[in-house]
Amino acid sequence: MERGAVTSSYEGDVDQAVALLNTALATELVCVLRYQYQTVMATGIHSESAKREFAQHATEEQGHANRLAERINQLGGKPNMNPEGLCSRSHPEFVEGDSLADMIRENLIAERIAIDSYREMIGFFRGHDSTTRKLLEEILEVEEEHDTDMQELLGSRA
Amino acid sequence: MERGAVTSSYEGDVDQAVALLNTALATELVCVLRYQYQTVMATGIHSESAKREFAQHATEEQGHANRLAERINQLGGKPNMNPEGLCSRSHPEFVEGDSLADMIRENLIAERIAIDSYREMIGFFRGHDSTTRKLLEEILEVEEEHDTDMQELLGSRA
Amino acid sequence: MERGAVTSSYEGDVDQAVALLNTALATELVCVLRYQYQTVMATGIHSESAKREFAQHATEEQGHANRLAERINQLGGKPNMNPEGLCSRSHPEFVEGDSLADMIRENLIAERIAIDSYREMIGFFRGHDSTTRKLLEEILEVEEEHDTDMQELLGSRA
Amino acid sequence: MERGAVTSSYEGDVDQAVALLNTALATELVCVLRYQYQTVMATGIHSESAKREFAQHATEEQGHANRLAERINQLGGKPNMNPEGLCSRSHPEFVEGDSLADMIRENLIAERIAIDSYREMIGFFRGHDSTTRKLLEEILEVEEEHDTDMQELLGSRA
Amino acid sequence: MERGAVTSSYEGDVDQAVALLNTALATELVCVLRYQYQTVMATGIHSESAKREFAQHATEEQGHANRLAERINQLGGKPNMNPEGLCSRSHPEFVEGDSLADMIRENLIAERIAIDSYREMIGFFRGHDSTTRKLLEEILEVEEEHDTDMQELLGSRA
Amino acid sequence: MERGAVTSSYEGDVDQAVALLNTALATELVCVLRYQYQTVMATGIHSESAKREFAQHATEEQGHANRLAERINQLGGKPNMNPEGLCSRSHPEFVEGDSLADMIRENLIAERIAIDSYREMIGFFRGHDSTTRKLLEEILEVEEEHDTDMQELLGSRA
Amino acid sequence: MERGAVTSSYEGDVDQAVALLNTALATELVCVLRYQYQTVMATGIHSESAKREFAQHATEEQGHANRLAERINQLGGKPNMNPEGLCSRSHPEFVEGDSLADMIRENLIAERIAIDSYREMIGFFRGHDSTTRKLLEEILEVEEEHDTDMQELLGSRA
Amino acid sequence: MERGAVTSSYEGDVDQAVALLNTALATELVCVLRYQYQTVMATGIHSESAKREFAQHATEEQGHANRLAERINQLGGKPNMNPEGLCSRSHPEFVEGDSLADMIRENLIAERIAIDSYREMIGFFRGHDSTTRKLLEEILEVEEEHDTDMQELLGSRA
Amino acid sequence: MERGAVTSSYEGDVDQAVALLNTALATELVCVLRYQYQTVMATGIHSESAKREFAQHATEEQGHANRLAERINQLGGKPNMNPEGLCSRSHPEFVEGDSLADMIRENLIAERIAIDSYREMIGFFRGHDSTTRKLLEEILEVEEEHDTDMQELLGSRA
Amino acid sequence: MERGAVTSSYEGDVDQAVALLNTALATELVCVLRYQYQTVMATGIHSESAKREFAQHATEEQGHANRLAERINQLGGKPNMNPEGLCSRSHPEFVEGDSLADMIRENLIAERIAIDSYREMIGFFRGHDSTTRKLLEEILEVEEEHDTDMQELLGSRA
Amino acid sequence: MERGAVTSSYEGDVDQAVALLNTALATELVCVLRYQYQTVMATGIHSESAKREFAQHATEEQGHANRLAERINQLGGKPNMNPEGLCSRSHPEFVEGDSLADMIRENLIAERIAIDSYREMIGFFRGHDSTTRKLLEEILEVEEEHDTDMQELLGSRA
Amino acid sequence: MERGAVTSSYEGDVDQAVALLNTALATELVCVLRYQYQTVMATGIHSESAKREFAQHATEEQGHANRLAERINQLGGKPNMNPEGLCSRSHPEFVEGDSLADMIRENLIAERIAIDSYREMIGFFRGHDSTTRKLLEEILEVEEEHDTDMQELLGSRA
Repeated sequence: MERGAVTSSYEGDVDQAVALLNTALATELVCVLRYQYQTVMATGIHSESAKREFAQHATEEQGHANRLAERINQLGGKPNMNPEGLCSRSHPEFVEGDSLADMIRENLIAERIAIDSYREMIGFFRGHDSTTRKLLEEILEVEEEHDTDMQELLGSRA
Repeated sequence: MERGAVTSSYEGDVDQAVALLNTALATELVCVLRYQYQTVMATGIHSESAKREFAQHATEEQGHANRLAERINQLGGKPNMNPEGLCSRSHPEFVEGDSLADMIRENLIAERIAIDSYREMIGFFRGHDSTTRKLLEEILEVEEEHDTDMQELLGSRA
Repeated sequence: MERGAVTSSYEGDVDQAVALLNTALATELVCVLRYQYQTVMATGIHSESAKREFAQHATEEQGHANRLAERINQLGGKPNMNPEGLCSRSHPEFVEGDSLADMIRENLIAERIAIDSYREMIGFFRGHDSTTRKLLEEILEVEEEHDTDMQELLGSRA
Repeated sequence: MERGAVTSSYEGDVDQAVALLNTALATELVCVLRYQYQTVMATGIHSESAKREFAQHATEEQGHANRLAERINQLGGKPNMNPEGLCSRSHPEFVEGDSLADMIRENLIAERIAIDSYREMIGFFRGHDSTTRKLLEEILEVEEEHDTDMQELLGSRA
Repeated sequence: MERGAVTSSYEGDVDQAVALLNTALATELVCVLRYQYQTVMATGIHSESAKREFAQHATEEQGHANRLAERINQLGGKPNMNPEGLCSRSHPEFVEGDSLADMIRENLIAERIAIDSYREMIGFFRGHDSTTRKLLEEILEVEEEHDTDMQELLGSRA
Repeated sequence: MERGAVTSSYEGDVDQAVALLNTALATELVCVLRYQYQTVMATGIHSESAKREFAQHATEEQGHANRLAERINQLGGKPNMNPEGLCSRSHPEFVEGDSLADMIRENLIAERIAIDSYREMIGFFRGHDSTTRKLLEEILEVEEEHDTDMQELLGSRA
Repeated sequence: MERGAVTSSYEGDVDQAVALLNTALATELVCVLRYQYQTVMATGIHSESAKREFAQHATEEQGHANRLAERINQLGGKPNMNPEGLCSRSHPEFVEGDSLADMIRENLIAERIAIDSYREMIGFFRGHDSTTRKLLEEILEVEEEHDTDMQELLGSRA
Repeated sequence: MERGAVTSSYEGDVDQAVALLNTALATELVCVLRYQYQTVMATGIHSESAKREFAQHATEEQGHANRLAERINQLGGKPNMNPEGLCSRSHPEFVEGDSLADMIRENLIAERIAIDSYREMIGFFRGHDSTTRKLLEEILEVEEEHDTDMQELLGSRA
Repeated sequence: MERGAVTSSYEGDVDQAVALLNTALATELVCVLRYQYQTVMATGIHSESAKREFAQHATEEQGHANRLAERINQLGGKPNMNPEGLCSRSHPEFVEGDSLADMIRENLIAERIAIDSYREMIGFFRGHDSTTRKLLEEILEVEEEHDTDMQELLGSRA
Repeated sequence: MERGAVTSSYEGDVDQAVALLNTALATELVCVLRYQYQTVMATGIHSESAKREFAQHATEEQGHANRLAERINQLGGKPNMNPEGLCSRSHPEFVEGDSLADMIRENLIAERIAIDSYREMIGFFRGHDSTTRKLLEEILEVEEEHDTDMQELLGSRA
Repeated sequence: MERGAVTSSYEGDVDQAVALLNTALATELVCVLRYQYQTVMATGIHSESAKREFAQHATEEQGHANRLAERINQLGGKPNMNPEGLCSRSHPEFVEGDSLADMIRENLIAERIAIDSYREMIGFFRGHDSTTRKLLEEILEVEEEHDTDMQELLGSRA
Repeated sequence: MERGAVTSSYEGDVDQAVALLNTALATELVCVLRYQYQTVMATGIHSESAKREFAQHATEEQGHANRLAERINQLGGKPNMNPEGLCSRSHPEFVEGDSLADMIRENLIAERIAIDSYREMIGFFRGHDSTTRKLLEEILEVEEEHDTDMQELLGSRA
C-alpha cells in the first residue's frame, strides 16, 4: 500500500518518467523567471501589449510547473526545484533579451525548444499512462499558443 | 387577434418595413463575419488594440442582428438569414483586407455605407413607428462610434 | 523562424489539415445562422425550452468556429469566412424548418452529418497532431450532446 | 421656486399631463395584480414557461408604475394609488382567466388596449416634453414585446 | 389524488383557512400600495431614511403577499387579488397621510392592526398545520420589526 | 462530558430518536436516487421543466439527508447509509417510472408517504427537543412544496 | 402609542422577559471575548482548525448578542452592555484556558451552561411570545452545533 | 476620408454644434467642482443624505462631461477643458454656498440654468443629428431629476 | 433516426459499453455514500482536513455518477440506479471504517480497485469511441488524485 | 528559536510595549461595546445616519482590537481580554449617553482621549519598531476620521 | 470641543498646513483636467495604451484631490476648489500637448514638479502629524509610478 | 529627462540602493521556490494547514519579488533574476527540509535572516527615500507574520 495506486499497476518505467518530468519542470521554471523579468523591463509605447502577454505567460508557465511537480509526487518521485543547477537541467537557457524585439525573439527560441521536447515526451507516455499524456498534451497546447502570440507580436504572420 | 397588437393599429406599410429591416440584417451579418475574421488574423505589435476593437464590434453587430431579426418577427415578417445570397442582400460587400491598415480601411468604408443607410431608414420610420425608429437610432449611435474608433486607429483625427 | 514552432517540427501535411479545418469552419458557421434564426422564430407554448436550446447551441457553435479559425491561423493557414460560397463549403445545407418539429428534425440531420465528419477528421489527426485532435474531440463531444438534446425534444428516446 | 424647474418653463398643460399619467398608472397597477395572480395559479406541464413570463411581466409593469408615479411627482402632481376605484381608472378591466389559454388571451386583450393608449399619449407629449415622451416610448416598447410574448405562447405566429 | 397530499391528511377546516389567508393577502396588498405611494411622495431633508424604510417595507409586504397566495394555492384555494373590493377585504384601510409625520402615523396604525390579526391567526393554525403557522410567524416577526422601525422614525422610544 | 451537552439534559429517549431519524435518512437517500435517475432519463418536448424540478428535488433531498445524518451524530447515534438494505429501511420503495407521467406519479406517491411520516415524527419530538422539531418542520415544508410541484406538472390543480 | 404594538397586546411579563434576555446577552458577550482571545492565542500544528472554529463561533455569538439587544429594545427594555459587572450577569464565567485542550474544554463547559439556560428560557416564552421563542430556538440550535464542534475537536465522539 | 463618416453626410453646421457643446462641457465641469466641494463640506445630522446626493450628482455630471467631450471629438472639434476661463465659458457661476440650505439653493439655481440651456440645444439638434439629440435628452432627463432631488431636500414639494 | 447520431455510425458494441458503464456507475454511487458517511462521522482534532477531503471526494464522485448516467443515456442504454443490488454491481464493497485511520485505509482500497478498472475500460474504448474514452480518462485522473490525497493523509509518502 | 524572530533582534523593551498595547486593546473593546449599544438604541427621525456611523465604528474598533491582540501575541505577550477590570484598564470610561446628542458627545470625548494616547504611543515606538508604529498610525488615522464623523453629526464644523 | 480632537492637541501650525494642502489640491485638480482631455483626444494605433494610462491617472489624481480636501476639512480648513484662479494656485500649469508625444512630455514635466513639491511637504509634516505625512507619502508613491509609466510610454528607459 | 523624476531629485546613492534591493530580490526568489516545493511535498494528516500556509507564503513572497523588481526599475537599475548564481546572491540558502518539522524549521531560519536584513535596509532608506522605506516596511510586516505563522505550527509559543 505504500507506493500508491498510481504506481502499483503502472506499466511504464517510473524512474524514467520522473526524470523526464523533472527536465520539463526545470524548463518551465526558467521560463517563469524570464517572462517575469521581461514583464517589468519592457518599455516603449508598443510595449504594453507585450508586457501583458509576458505576464500572462509567466502565470501560465508557473501553473505548468506546479502541475508537473504534483504529477512527479503522484508517481512517487521528488520534484527538483533547487535553483542551483536549474539552468543546466532546463532545455532552453536563460537569456532575457535587451530590446523589446530581442525579448520576443528569445521567447520564440525557448518556446520552440519546449514544443519539440513536449512532442517527444507525449510519444513516450502514450499507451501506458493516459493521465501524464493528457497533462503534457494540455501543456503543449498552451505552448503552441504562446508561440503564435510571440509571432503575432513580431508581425511575421499576416 | 392573429396578426398581433403591434401591427393591428400600425399605420405604416408593413411589407416595406420588413424588406428594409432584412437589408439591414444582411448588412450586420456580413459585418459580423468580417470583424470575426479580422479578430483572428490581425498581427504585428500594434495589432492588439485593433484586435480588441474588432472583437467588440463583432459582438455589437451580432447584437444588432438579433434585435433586427426580433423586430422583423414582431412586425409579422420573416428574417432572412440564409448565407446563400447574403452578400447580394447586404449594403457593403465582404472584403476582409490583408494588412492591418487595409482591414481598418475596409471597416471604415463599410461603416460609412451602413451609417448612410441607417440615416435614411430612420427618416422612413419617423412619424408612424417609434419603436423601430428608436432601435435604428440606437444602432446608428453605435455605428458612429465604430467609425470614430476606426479613425482613431488610423490616427487621422488629432 | 517565419513559419512558427507549430509547423516547423510538424509531421503531417499542413495544407490538407487547413483544408479539412476550413470545411469544419463552414459547417459551424452555417449551423450558427440556422440556430439563430430558430431562436427568434420558434413559437407555441412548448417552444420556450426549444428556443433556449437553440440559443445555447448557436453560442456553442460560434465558439467552435472561433477555435477552428484560430487553429487554422496557428497552422499558418487562412480561415475562409466569406459568406459567398459558404453553403457549398459546408457539410450540411442551410434549411431552417417551418414548424417547431421541422426545425428540430433539420437540426438532427445537420448534427449527424457533422458528427460523422468529425469522427473521420479525428482519425486523420490522431498520431501526429495532438492539439488539433484534442480540439476536434472536444467539439465532437458537444455535437453528440446537441444530438441528444434534439432527440429529447422530439421525445423519441424514453 | 415652489413649482420647480421642471414645470417653470414647461410649455404644456400640466394638469392634463398628470391626468393622463394617472390613468396609465392605474392601468399598470391592474396589470401587476393580474400577472401576479396568474404567476401563482397557472398549472399543467406546459405552464412553467408561461409562469416565468407572467412573473417577469409583473415585475416590469411594477417598474413602469414606479416610474410613472415619479414623473407625476416631478410634474407637481399626486399619483393616485388608492385601490378604491382603481378598476374604473384603469384602461383594461381586471379579468384573470381560468385556464392557461384564457389567461394568455386576457393578457393579449389588456396589452393591446395599453399599446393603443400609449401610442395616443406619445402624440400628446411629443413636441413640448421630451422626458415624458421618452418614458412612454420605453414603456410602449416593452408592452409591444409583451404582446409578442403572449402571441408566441399561443403559437399563432409561426 | 386530486386534492393533494397537503390537504388529504389535513386536520383543519380548509375553507376557513383559505378565507383567513385571503384577508391577510388583501391586507398586505393594501400595505404595498400605501408604502409605494409614500416612497415616491415623502419630502423634506429628513425624508431620505423614511423613504428607504418605506421602499423596503413595500418590497417585504409584496413578498408576504406572494407567499400567502402560494400557500392558498397549496391548500387548494384561490387567492383573491381583484382590486375591486380590495379595501373592504383588508384589515386596515388605505390612508396615505399628507405630511411625513402623518404617513408614519398611518403606517403605525396599519401595522398594529396587522400584528393583532396575525397573532390571532397563529392561534388558529397552531396544532394542526405547522407550515402555515411558520409562515405566519415569520410574517409577524417582520411586522413587529416594521412597527419598531416606524416608532424609531417618530423618535418616541428612546 | 463524553456524551455531550446535546444529550446530557435531553429529556427524550435518545435511542428511539436515532431510530426514527435513520428511517427518515433512508427515505431521503432513496428519493435522491430516484430523482437523479429521472433527471437524466425524462424526455419529450415537455420534459425540460420536469427535469429541472427533478434535479432541484434531488439536490434538496440530498441536503435533507446530510442534515439528518448530522443530527443523528449530534444525538450520539450512527447514521446508517449502507446501500445494503436501504430499500427495506426506507418508507417508500424505489420505483422510477417509465414515461414522464409515470415518473411524476411515482414521485407523488413517495412524497405523500414521506409527508405523513414527517407529520408523525414532528408530534414525537414536539415538547422535549425543539432543534429536531424545527429540522423536521423545515423538511416537511419542502416536501409539501415538492408535492405541489408534482401536482402542477400533472395539471390536476387549476 | 408610546409603548408600541409589540407590547400593547403582549400577554407576558415584559420586565421579566427583559431581565432574562439581558442575562442571555451578558452570556453571549462573555463568550465572544473568550472565543476572540482563543482565536489569537491557540498554537500548535493542530490548532488551525480549532482557530477557525473559534473565530466562527465568535462571529456567531456576536450575532446572537446583536439580535438579543434588538429584541430587548423591541420589548421596550434597555440592553445592558456595560463591561462593569458583565461577568456577574453572565451564566458562565470568563476562563480562557491555557493549552489548546484546556481552551476546548472551557468552551464545552460554557456551551453546556448556555444550552441548559436556553432550554429553560424557551419554556418561559412558549405560549405567549412566538417571536422571542423562535429567536431563542435558533440560538439554541447554533449552540448545540458549537457543542458538537468542540466535542469533535476533542475526538470523544467517534 | 479625413473628416469621418459622422460629418461627411452631416447636414448641420459643425462649428456651431461644437461651440454649443463646449459651453455645455464647461457648465458640467463647474458643477462637478461645486458638488465635490459640497460633498466634503456639508455638516449637521441632516447632512448625510445631502452629502450622498451631492456625491452622486458629482459623478453623474462628470459622466456627462466625458460624453460631451467625446461627442465634440466625434464631430471633429476640440473639447476645451482649460481651467483658465472655465467660469466665463460656463452657464452658471461657481458659488458653493455656506450653510447646507445655501448649498442646496445654489444647486437649484445652477440646475435650472442648465435645464433651460439643454432644452434650447435639443431644439437646435432636432431634425438633423439624432445622436447628439439623444445624448442631450438623456442629460436633460438627469438634470431634471437633480432639480427634483434638490427640491425634495428643501422640502418645498409635499 | 430513432437511435440517434451517437450510435448510428458507432463502431463498437453498444450493449457491452452500456454494461461496463453501469458497473462504473454503481462503483461511484457506493463511493458517494461512503464518503458522505465519513464526512459526518470523522472526529478528533486532526479530522478537519480529512472531513474536508471526504466532502470534496463525495461531490466529485457524485459528478462522475451523473456524467456516466448521461453517457449511458446518450448511447441508448438505461442507467441502473436501483439501491437494491447496488453493492453487488459495484467493484468495491461498502465498508465505512471506524476510526479515522480505518476510514482512510478503506478509501485507499476502494480507490485502487476503481483505478484498475478504469485503466482497463479505457483500453476497451480507445480506438472507436473518443467521447467515452475522454470521459473515463478524466475520471481516472481525479481518482488518481484521490488516491494521492488519501496517502498524504496517512503520511506514507514523504 | 523559542522567542521568535520578531523579538530576537528587537531593540525596544518588550514588556513595556506589551503593556502599552494592552491598554489600547482595553480602550478599543470598551468602544466596541459603547458603539454596539448605541447602534441598537439611537432613535428619532435623524438617527438613521447616526446609527449607520455607530455600526461602522463598532466594526472598525473591533478590527483594531483584533490587530492589537495579534501584535501583542507576535511580541510574545498575552492579550488581556478579561471583562473583569476592563473598564479600569481602558483609557476612556464606559458611558453610553441617553439622548442621541448625548451619545455623540460621549463618543467625541472617548475619541479624543484615544487620539491623544495613540499620538503618545507612536512616539514611543518610532525608531525601533516600524511594524507596531505603522499599526498605530493606521489606527490613529481612523480615530481621527471617527472624530470628524461625530463632529459632522453635531454640525459644529461648517 | 468645537475645533475637534484632530487639532486640539495638534503641535504644528494649522494655517500653514492648510495652505500647503490647498496648493497640492489645486495641483491635482489641474492634472485631472489635463488627463481627462488627453483620454478623449489621443489618437493613432499606438494611442490605446496611452489612453488607458491617461484615464487611470485621471481617476487616481481625482482620488488624491478628494483625500486632500477631506484632510483640509479635518484640520478645520476650507478646501479651495474654485476654478477661478485654479491655474495660479497649482504648481504645474495647464498644458495639454498636441501630438501624443507632446502629451506624454507635458505629463512628465507636471509629474516631476508634483514629486518635488510632495517630497518637500513630507519633510514639513514629519515629526508632528503622522496622518498627513502618511497621506502625502501614499500620494508621492503613486506619482512616482505615474512618472515611470510616462517614461515607459516614451521608451527612454530600456 | 532621461533618468526620470524618481532619481533627478533623489538624495541617496542610487547604485547602492539598487544593489541592496537586488539582494532582497534574490532572497525572495529563493524563498518562493522553497515554499512551492514544500507545498507539493508536505504529507501526513497534520500537513494540510502547513501546506496552506506554505502556498500562501509562496504567493506573498512572489508578490514581494515583483514589487522589488519594479522599484529597482523605477530607480533606473536592472533587476537580476538569472537563476545562475541566484543562491549566492540570496541571504538564506536553499534548503527544503525532509520531514514536515524540518521544513518548518528551515523556514524559520530563512525568515529570521530575512527579517534582520530588512530591518537594516529600512535604516538605510529612512530619511531620504520614503517610497522605498514604505515598501520595505510593508514587506517586513509580512515577514514578521510569516515568522509567527511558523512558530505557531511548531507550537512553541502558547
